[in-house]
Formats: sequence, structure tokens, C-alpha cells
Amino acid sequence: MVESYTIHPVGVVRKKSDTAWIEIFSPYREAMMGLEDFSHIQVFYWFHENDTIALRRILRVHPRNNPANPLTGVFATHSPKRPNLIGLTCCRTTAIEEDRIMIDSIDARDGSPVIDIKCFIPDAQLPADVRVPGWVLPLK
Amino acid sequence: MVESYTIHPVGVVRKKSDTAWIEIFSPYREAMMGLEDFSHIQVFYWFHENDTIALRRILRVHPRNNPANPLTGVFATHSPKRPNLIGLTCCRTTAIEEDRIMIDSIDARDGSPVIDIKCFIPDAQLPADVRVPGWVLPLK
Repeated sequence: MVESYTIHPVGVVRKKSDTAWIEIFSPYREAMMGLEDFSHIQVFYWFHENDTIALRRILRVHPRNNPANPLTGVFATHSPKRPNLIGLTCCRTTAIEEDRIMIDSIDARDGSPVIDIKCFIPDAQLPADVRVPGWVLPLK
Repeated sequence: MVESYTIHPVGVVRKKSDTAWIEIFSPYREAMMGLEDFSHIQVFYWFHENDTIALRRILRVHPRNNPANPLTGVFATHSPKRPNLIGLTCCRTTAIEEDRIMIDSIDARDGSPVIDIKCFIPDAQLPADVRVPGWVLPLK
């Protein structure tokens, strides 16, 4: 196994007042074909503001930045502090344009580098009998 | 925006006969605390066998490697050929040990580098009114 892999951003998150979109960089626009047939996409982005050696060494956090929540390993959270700074969110698309994917909203900051887009296929991702700890509740 | 980011594997997928697990490398084991409270995890891995310049330039594929499916941009698929070789799958955990997460099965090859683990929180990921194209059906 090699020691590391290289991520090249394929786009960027843009938010302005009430609109949000993913701008796709020109070398990657061919990869958008067919997105119009899906209602939702999974957006993978990079928590680039946390890309320092010190922040990438943080392995335990109080979830949702709330000290009342128990100290928890970052693999058991969605914390933006983690060894590899991958963020993931599911978005409803509203339009597919030549160089952008319009979305209704996104839980990522304006300017976040987008590192992958995947179509959202529900049954592959909806297991039954899901169990979560108390700090997760109420589910948002 | 910087031009690229670096991924350091945090573990590896292991499969043997009827068992499967994620081996977590020692520097990252503290990040596992709390995983036992979740029934499911999201496993992010790297399609390392496709990590060549040529394969990372493939932007359109016939989904599921079936020529009967329409040529589709990789962002509208889960293809293992894509600019950034991120794979994502949801797994049910069966036990959490010191250095491994036992899982019931995984849609990734033995030896795949694991790049992130996130807890699975259903409501954040189950939108209503999902629409998908014909090649996706029947949902697996």
C-alpha cells in the first residue's frame, strides 16, 4: 500500500443569499452527463480550513461542538476535524447547467473544494434497524 | 484554493471466507471510541487499483459495466473509475475490537485502503421524493 493518495478538487461550493450551487471545473464537466435524471446527489467536499497537521491529529471531539455531549472518536461523528478532511452531504438538485449543479441548499461553506459527486441511490443506503447513541437525538 | 490535498489511509479492508472487518492503523485507533453505539458506519475507501493518470481521466462509463446502460458521466454513477477514487459504502457493524471494526459484509475488495469512517445517522441521509433513472432499477 502506498503511503498517501492525491485529491484534485473537481469543483467548488458556491452560496449566495438564497441560492447554492456546485461549480464544476472545466476538465471535469463531461462527468456531469446524466445528473439530470437524479433528484439528489451526494456531494463530497474537503474541510480545507482544517487542513493543518495539528487539526488533522485531533481524534476525539465533543459531538456538535457541545461539551455536554460525551467525548467521542471522530470516526463515530461527522466532525469537520478528522484525519482525512472528507465532508459528505446529500443535496436535492434543482437544475443542471453546463458548468454548475444548482441545489436547494448545502451544509458546507461557500468556497469549500468539491472532491467528488455521486448520484444518490436510496436502497443502497437505507439499512433497516438503525441504532444511534443519545447525543444524536433528536435527529435533525 | 490549493491544487491538491493529501489522503493518508487510516486502515484497510480485510475479507476472509465469511468474515469482513476494517483494520484501523494504530495512530488512528483513538478515533474509534463511541463506534459501539452505532449499528452502522459509512466506510470511505480508495479505489487504489485504478490510481493511474489514465484511469482517473475516464469521465463517462456505461453504469455497472453493462453496455446496455446509457453512457453516463461518472458523477451520475458510483463507478470505481472517477477523478478522485473515493468509494463509499454503508456497513452494519457486528463488533468493535481494539484495532478492528467487525462488519457483516462490505462492497469493497480485500486490501482496499480505508480513508475515513463516519457514523451512520439516518435522518440526515434519507430524503423523501427520490428520483433515479431507469438503469438504476431494480434497486439492489
